[in-house]
Amino acid sequence: MEFHILTLFPEMIEQGLNTSIIGKAIEKECISLNTYNIRDYTTNKHKKVDDYTYGGGAGMLMQAQPVYDAYLAVKNSMPETFKPRVIYLCPQGVPFCQNLARELSKEESLVLICGHYEGIDERVLEEIVTDYVSLGDYVLTGGELAAMVVVDAVSRLVPGVLNNEDSAVTESFHNHLLEYPQYSRPEEWRGKKVPEVLMSGNHKKIEEWRFHQSLERTKHFRPDLYEKYLKEHKK
Amino acid sequence: MEFHILTLFPEMIEQGLNTSIIGKAIEKECISLNTYNIRDYTTNKHKKVDDYTYGGGAGMLMQAQPVYDAYLAVKNSMPETFKPRVIYLCPQGVPFCQNLARELSKEESLVLICGHYEGIDERVLEEIVTDYVSLGDYVLTGGELAAMVVVDAVSRLVPGVLNNEDSAVTESFHNHLLEYPQYSRPEEWRGKKVPEVLMSGNHKKIEEWRFHQSLERTKHFRPDLYEKYLKEHKK
Repeated sequence: MEFHILTLFPEMIEQGLNTSIIGKAIEKECISLNTYNIRDYTTNKHKKVDDYTYGGGAGMLMQAQPVYDAYLAVKNSMPETFKPRVIYLCPQGVPFCQNLARELSKEESLVLICGHYEGIDERVLEEIVTDYVSLGDYVLTGGELAAMVVVDAVSRLVPGVLNNEDSAVTESFHNHLLEYPQYSRPEEWRGKKVPEVLMSGNHKKIEEWRFHQSLERTKHFRPDLYEKYLKEHKK
Repeated sequence: MEFHILTLFPEMIEQGLNTSIIGKAIEKECISLNTYNIRDYTTNKHKKVDDYTYGGGAGMLMQAQPVYDAYLAVKNSMPETFKPRVIYLCPQGVPFCQNLARELSKEESLVLICGHYEGIDERVLEEIVTDYVSLGDYVLTGGELAAMVVVDAVSRLVPGVLNNEDSAVTESFHNHLLEYPQYSRPEEWRGKKVPEVLMSGNHKKIEEWRFHQSLERTKHFRPDLYEKYLKEHKK
């Protein structure tokens, strides 16, 4: 799977993703990460990529031309008839979620566009973007961290990226339930013991206990998810 | 404002945040970023920090001891009576949002804990964590990117970090409405013109147009936010 990221800060993305599991996945060639510096594509002789906003307002806006030409560079590196999904990371998009991560993990190529400053000229977005995606209801200084989060969440679902394929499956957000608490050695730490049932070897009981914990946590922390769960599991 | 980040991958965080606006904020000393490698605090002679999960299940769990001792190192660097907020980034937390970012931006210090593998032994979380925070309903390979997102969203609200303080104010998620489309030079690009009203110089009309666009976008992309908006603005 290929990620193509258009950004003003390619080194931020490369450095932030070259360690840990994603770095290893790139080494193993399970995924590839290609960054394009939007500034390299501006036709402005001072290498400017931004300008004031029509109608007034604080801050600068990224202009259409350099973003469009950076996109064309990516597009032209692909087979002519191939139309990649082009994701613009912005607070105005649909909220990113595990289902969308799963859907995106089946694509061959993804193009991610990172805005900066006040955003990007609407006209180029209309022209090239297929998906507007938001990480959540908060504002970041730019789209770079958002793109890195999407790369991470999507990559870990690509076969071969995680060592133990189970890890990608038995996790949060299946059935809308949050994960149960987990314990590792030692059996007792600062007076706190591992719950006895987990040491019992009785798999049925362990599963029941974990399921109950998941339910309780979801009810407590995320009543919205708990309701979704109840709706889908009512007969 | 001081950020203290406990992680197994300090270089990922340092490199991912040393460019762009956050990098400049660190240079200007508006914020400081301190990372602690949890592996440096393990008492295991092989520098191991993880072990199997009691009760079975794929993947490894980070153990309580190294996390706790890394936390103590941070705590001991602070005045004795000071109780910092300690945030554990995990899919089980409350969803991060702009209001929480605003609240956190008023703290002097924040401690952020990044899990990895299957998570962290529940007992140390019970002992030290004050806030469980989730970026959104998706799963990442670790808490590092989540911590970087929180640092970014919180930092930009710290006075002095953004050049133009207006930028932090006139943005998305005030009144639950998404931002309107924006346009920059040139007036015409690939046959697409900037909407005339924005060139009119009539500030009242521009504001009305933008407000209408925000409403329409929110209705389209985020019916959930639109409903919240309507509820709060009904007389």
